[in-house]
Amino acid sequence: MIAERAPAAATAALLVEALPYIRRFAGCVVVVKYGGSTHGVVGDGSDSGLSTFAEDIALLRSVGLHPVVVHGGGPQIGALMQRLGKEVEFRDGLRVTDAETLDIARMVLVGKVNREIVAAINVHGALAVGLSGEDANLIQAVQRGGDLGFVGDVVGVDPTLLSNLLDQNLVPVVATVGTDDAGQAYNINADTAAGAIAEALSAEKLIFLTDVEGIRADPAEPGSLLHQLTAAELDGLVASGVASGGMVPKARACARAVRAGVAAAHILDGRVSHALLVELFTDGGVGTMVRP
Amino acid sequence: MIAERAPAAATAALLVEALPYIRRFAGCVVVVKYGGSTHGVVGDGSDSGLSTFAEDIALLRSVGLHPVVVHGGGPQIGALMQRLGKEVEFRDGLRVTDAETLDIARMVLVGKVNREIVAAINVHGALAVGLSGEDANLIQAVQRGGDLGFVGDVVGVDPTLLSNLLDQNLVPVVATVGTDDAGQAYNINADTAAGAIAEALSAEKLIFLTDVEGIRADPAEPGSLLHQLTAAELDGLVASGVASGGMVPKARACARAVRAGVAAAHILDGRVSHALLVELFTDGGVGTMVRP
Amino acid sequence: MIAERAPAAATAALLVEALPYIRRFAGCVVVVKYGGSTHGVVGDGSDSGLSTFAEDIALLRSVGLHPVVVHGGGPQIGALMQRLGKEVEFRDGLRVTDAETLDIARMVLVGKVNREIVAAINVHGALAVGLSGEDANLIQAVQRGGDLGFVGDVVGVDPTLLSNLLDQNLVPVVATVGTDDAGQAYNINADTAAGAIAEALSAEKLIFLTDVEGIRADPAEPGSLLHQLTAAELDGLVASGVASGGMVPKARACARAVRAGVAAAHILDGRVSHALLVELFTDGGVGTMVRP
Amino acid sequence: MIAERAPAAATAALLVEALPYIRRFAGCVVVVKYGGSTHGVVGDGSDSGLSTFAEDIALLRSVGLHPVVVHGGGPQIGALMQRLGKEVEFRDGLRVTDAETLDIARMVLVGKVNREIVAAINVHGALAVGLSGEDANLIQAVQRGGDLGFVGDVVGVDPTLLSNLLDQNLVPVVATVGTDDAGQAYNINADTAAGAIAEALSAEKLIFLTDVEGIRADPAEPGSLLHQLTAAELDGLVASGVASGGMVPKARACARAVRAGVAAAHILDGRVSHALLVELFTDGGVGTMVRP
Amino acid sequence: MIAERAPAAATAALLVEALPYIRRFAGCVVVVKYGGSTHGVVGDGSDSGLSTFAEDIALLRSVGLHPVVVHGGGPQIGALMQRLGKEVEFRDGLRVTDAETLDIARMVLVGKVNREIVAAINVHGALAVGLSGEDANLIQAVQRGGDLGFVGDVVGVDPTLLSNLLDQNLVPVVATVGTDDAGQAYNINADTAAGAIAEALSAEKLIFLTDVEGIRADPAEPGSLLHQLTAAELDGLVASGVASGGMVPKARACARAVRAGVAAAHILDGRVSHALLVELFTDGGVGTMVRP
Amino acid sequence: MIAERAPAAATAALLVEALPYIRRFAGCVVVVKYGGSTHGVVGDGSDSGLSTFAEDIALLRSVGLHPVVVHGGGPQIGALMQRLGKEVEFRDGLRVTDAETLDIARMVLVGKVNREIVAAINVHGALAVGLSGEDANLIQAVQRGGDLGFVGDVVGVDPTLLSNLLDQNLVPVVATVGTDDAGQAYNINADTAAGAIAEALSAEKLIFLTDVEGIRADPAEPGSLLHQLTAAELDGLVASGVASGGMVPKARACARAVRAGVAAAHILDGRVSHALLVELFTDGGVGTMVRP
Repeated sequence: MIAERAPAAATAALLVEALPYIRRFAGCVVVVKYGGSTHGVVGDGSDSGLSTFAEDIALLRSVGLHPVVVHGGGPQIGALMQRLGKEVEFRDGLRVTDAETLDIARMVLVGKVNREIVAAINVHGALAVGLSGEDANLIQAVQRGGDLGFVGDVVGVDPTLLSNLLDQNLVPVVATVGTDDAGQAYNINADTAAGAIAEALSAEKLIFLTDVEGIRADPAEPGSLLHQLTAAELDGLVASGVASGGMVPKARACARAVRAGVAAAHILDGRVSHALLVELFTDGGVGTMVRP
Repeated sequence: MIAERAPAAATAALLVEALPYIRRFAGCVVVVKYGGSTHGVVGDGSDSGLSTFAEDIALLRSVGLHPVVVHGGGPQIGALMQRLGKEVEFRDGLRVTDAETLDIARMVLVGKVNREIVAAINVHGALAVGLSGEDANLIQAVQRGGDLGFVGDVVGVDPTLLSNLLDQNLVPVVATVGTDDAGQAYNINADTAAGAIAEALSAEKLIFLTDVEGIRADPAEPGSLLHQLTAAELDGLVASGVASGGMVPKARACARAVRAGVAAAHILDGRVSHALLVELFTDGGVGTMVRP
Repeated sequence: MIAERAPAAATAALLVEALPYIRRFAGCVVVVKYGGSTHGVVGDGSDSGLSTFAEDIALLRSVGLHPVVVHGGGPQIGALMQRLGKEVEFRDGLRVTDAETLDIARMVLVGKVNREIVAAINVHGALAVGLSGEDANLIQAVQRGGDLGFVGDVVGVDPTLLSNLLDQNLVPVVATVGTDDAGQAYNINADTAAGAIAEALSAEKLIFLTDVEGIRADPAEPGSLLHQLTAAELDGLVASGVASGGMVPKARACARAVRAGVAAAHILDGRVSHALLVELFTDGGVGTMVRP
Repeated sequence: MIAERAPAAATAALLVEALPYIRRFAGCVVVVKYGGSTHGVVGDGSDSGLSTFAEDIALLRSVGLHPVVVHGGGPQIGALMQRLGKEVEFRDGLRVTDAETLDIARMVLVGKVNREIVAAINVHGALAVGLSGEDANLIQAVQRGGDLGFVGDVVGVDPTLLSNLLDQNLVPVVATVGTDDAGQAYNINADTAAGAIAEALSAEKLIFLTDVEGIRADPAEPGSLLHQLTAAELDGLVASGVASGGMVPKARACARAVRAGVAAAHILDGRVSHALLVELFTDGGVGTMVRP
Repeated sequence: MIAERAPAAATAALLVEALPYIRRFAGCVVVVKYGGSTHGVVGDGSDSGLSTFAEDIALLRSVGLHPVVVHGGGPQIGALMQRLGKEVEFRDGLRVTDAETLDIARMVLVGKVNREIVAAINVHGALAVGLSGEDANLIQAVQRGGDLGFVGDVVGVDPTLLSNLLDQNLVPVVATVGTDDAGQAYNINADTAAGAIAEALSAEKLIFLTDVEGIRADPAEPGSLLHQLTAAELDGLVASGVASGGMVPKARACARAVRAGVAAAHILDGRVSHALLVELFTDGGVGTMVRP
Repeated sequence: MIAERAPAAATAALLVEALPYIRRFAGCVVVVKYGGSTHGVVGDGSDSGLSTFAEDIALLRSVGLHPVVVHGGGPQIGALMQRLGKEVEFRDGLRVTDAETLDIARMVLVGKVNREIVAAINVHGALAVGLSGEDANLIQAVQRGGDLGFVGDVVGVDPTLLSNLLDQNLVPVVATVGTDDAGQAYNINADTAAGAIAEALSAEKLIFLTDVEGIRADPAEPGSLLHQLTAAELDGLVASGVASGGMVPKARACARAVRAGVAAAHILDGRVSHALLVELFTDGGVGTMVRP
């Protein structure tokens, strides 16, 4: 061996590490929940995170993975409501959604946030197709009740349209609006919807990109990040209140998804550059992984 | 023959008339431009026209045609701009579109008008998929210039996504936003976009559903409806000013489409109930047909 | 709505009624028994009924149904026997069939009646292919016995050849001669054979075109036509003698077919012009429908 | 080598000779004209020739060749006309065919001769399907004129139906009736039709099974059999009258077929047992072979 | 019939006998064990047997059978060892195989004997592909133990590669070297390997070409050849010592193969010219056939 | 960004660099010439280079590339000849190859070197299939003449077998023996054969793994490595003697291959660990690249 080849040798070592992961995940569906209530990147004027995320999605697809992007958009909905002088009302932490609020939410989710994600991905080629859960029966919902108006719960996912787009090597980007049998639309929690979509697609992975490090054994202690959890352990963290707030629907979606056949669920730190690539293609991860 | 069978005989005559049309158009693509500047049905609270239109689209698809719906939404854009206190400026009859206007237009077209048409069709089954021209390179545009801001002209249509959805027996509903090579979005005239889509799909028919009877030899004279025109005759009517106003982009799109291989273009009276069915499946039409 | 559009509206109503039927029956096999002992149209010099029937068959095929025509030809067999000076003998209402009679019957069925039906359909394109039940194992028979000679009963139908012709969008026209394992041919009752073919093809419908109105509660009372019957009710009508004569094998074939998976069997009045179209594609029927 | 193995060695030699022919002709279409004016086997009560012929056809098909049988039936038509007291009139050696004669010819060809050949082949399995040239546009004809009535000349062959049946490993047996554009049927010379079918199918071989030894240089001299001829030499034999009578249409069909792409045409002695097998699969032939 | 046609008639009789066998075995896999310890043809300078064998293999393939050739090469291995001054040691009749012996054996089997068989077959076209059991997991082995060194027993066969080559109409020629999970190669008994390959391919036939007449009831008595045996009877002959020496692994492989689904196993006299053809395609065989 | 994430960021950067290469080469054929006259790794007892090479081949295949390995084995042939007491004669630098030498060469190449490469690759799964250029017409050769005996030149490559194995995701390993039309085998230069195979497969890349750094502008000057060359520049280096000795056939094969459609040819330093991976998947290379 020749001394000055050292960088090549280091590069070789990483390739030898990464290639088996690339092989293993080729053809696999990876559902990525992006942004939402805890991660205000989209539409807030500081989109550098979005462009790196979009590059990752394009790279994943280019080596044969099938990414599906799911997103919400709470902050942006609130912003437009405010501009329109519409008062935002919360009940038990949930937005009360009258007909006009639903109309506004749908405009923002489908007509603004979804479009910005699609545009960012399509900088890398004609890859992304924006969808609403209303399209072709994608997300079936029922009204949650409790005077919340048009807030719905997912009762079914028809993955046919997604599968067909994935077969064409396109990247579906899904805004989480659902419909009931009568055609009424509902606002749906995006974390829950991402989990249901991962289940319906028998995804290999369900990944939540958040603005925290992952799940910590002690939320106040940076060094206490939990690298691997079982679904049962995760249930315990929710029950004990260690996982709380916006982390609860993510934790529940992770636990449910891995029990329903998704091989692994991840809560990643979206602030780490190219977190998706590093998590998927190297031995070391950058967040919390949940396994059955 | 037995006398009281008369109604059956009349029914039989119509079936014998209609079945060959149904056979002939089976498998054909029909691009239908719905609503827009001259036809404010969607989103104005009086949607009976929309539900009949949606039923026709579902019936066309059920007997093997491949309808594609294209729409604009000028009045609804204006309404939201007004609510947001944004001043609407027109130059030479065209809306000046700054970045915020584009944002609003996209929310209305993709997040509201498109959604309402999709919902109306999906009452008849999980048929419709809402798209923006930004998805998967569908509508490629360039800036028109002339201080109009983000107003674009169509320079290309990639029909791959539409073809794939049609192959799955789905009904694409297209909001006419386009993008340029750099990923910048533009507002596009929906009549022109409908024509370009019909060309790109080698559609059998391009149909404009309007709120007028068709093209008249004398615009003021109800009895002067022109039932059939050649592309050249239509050019003459535009040149002489007989076709004017909102009819001009429709007339130009019709003339261009039939010259580019679309078998026939139609300007129909959308106020006639089930105008689409009667025009497609019987010997007598309900508007103006343009042939090469 | 505009007053003078009334005819268009009526037309629209019928299209809205007919299109769902056309959709529903697309791709379905419809076995039609034509002519035979009660309906002497073919070969008798007054063929207007045949040409309308042939037009209906061509139209059904053109909109995606798969019609199969089955026919007998008793009167024409008798006519040729008479010309050849061969005495016709009946025993218990069945023609005694010696070797020469079988030879004559086969010439008439396969070489004359079958050819005339094929020719009438092929006026509408190269659609029809004449077959005998002897071809490619189509109708397997055994001798009935009872000194009737070469009269056979159907013991099996191999639908492979029919299915292949239907896949090529051709219209099989079947003369009801069968063969046994030793290759001996037999004359087969055409009503029974039509039912067995419908079963073997898992047909959607089995239709008998006759020269009566359908089955009446009181055969002597024109107003007593029974529009819908169950297989059990039909058995009762045969047992009580309400259905008698040439109607018996039709009634039995209907009852057996719907029990074996054919969705519905119909006894139609072939004298009504385009009876097939009106029965299949409108809400009102023109005869008796039998359901399981 | 061991002495008593001699018979095995002789057998081995023949297998080594035959197997390459079997390989070469696998998948090839072979059109065989059987019987007709010079060979009255079918329907005359002495059918041992037919059963051997049928066995050969079944064996050819079993090793992957695609035989198509074409037949006429002049003597049998004459016999039925006589029984019906219908006078047979010939003009320039051709049967004058009025409407009734056509009806009788069709009954005999399609309903009797065709059926007997189909039955003989089907003794070896469900292989044969009887067809008339009227089916699915198979033989297109025009009236020959010259006061001959419904005598037609072949102007086109649509081999689609034949090809599809061959793809299903079935054996088409074709009665040579043709139709014109108006659906009128005509009696067609079977030798000419066999040649036209061989052309349309790009057959490897066209074979006439006759009751003579082949073509002789001197018709009166048994030792003068011509084993191989070119199309040009064959033309000379027709021009010089060496080939005459019923041999003329055969000779013309052979010459035309090999010029149109059929690899070889054969006139074989059908009285030699299994002549087809010996001709196709061994170095020595049993008749006259025509090459381009 | 004409007297001088007699030879044609005899030929016809053999064709009628052979064609059904050719049909029946078309598409079937036939595993042929060639040469080995009892039959030193390959590589000994007297290869006339090899060229006839190769011609038979090419002919079998040409008429649609799928032959697979399996071979050993004991004598040739011994010859090279001797030239290299390497002592050959046997223990209980088995060659002790140290690492160098294995290296030599592999060179001879894969690099010499295999190549000569491939070359002989390829004189008839580009048909043969030489393989070692080491390729693509073909023969999985374990060490036999007993101080025999690298002598292995077959524990599995992966027929995927063979099937794919057969699908391409190629002829695999397999040298019987196997590997264990760690990639260590072993010398394998070729008779046993041939049987295991026939099982794995669900072969129609397993054929051993030997230099004896077959199995005799009395090994010393030429007239006592056993033409047909069951697997149980064969077991008895091994147990009683009637089958002994090199015949034992052949007998065991035959008995095992027919019990595992191979339709018939044959021990043929390879000294009979074209023994393969005569055995496969005529009623009379040239050796011993074993059936379940 | 968080400080301790630095390694993750560096990893991310390399992944972002490598993934587009992986995408670009997926599905591409890469022909790799391994070992031979300048690189004595195989069979010399110090095989650590072989196992790293085999791992790279397995990794390339696992991410969708189609590697084909080509090898010679001059030193090993010499070694066996010596052991057998066979004198090695060279004329103009080429081994004189009499029949016995050819026999020995073939045993070594096909039965020893080829087997060792196959075994090394198959440690990573059942991937490799050893072939000789004699199999299925792979390498067609003619005798070179000049008293060299059985030394041949490549005149054709039939890539069918290779393509089929690649379609099954197998890795062909080719020993460079060729045959002429008469079936005579020849020893072929492995560098030339590798180039001809790359051409015939329309390979994306042809790679020579050598034991030098690449091509230097001044062979004596380590710092003068040429990173990129055109085919014309390479011709110049051969003409001027800068490229000499064993580098000449490599240089000629590179120049010819890129002129014949291979996108790029590489001469790599096989002593660099994982040189193949680093060259293919990173911006920096480890040798000389030749482009058209």
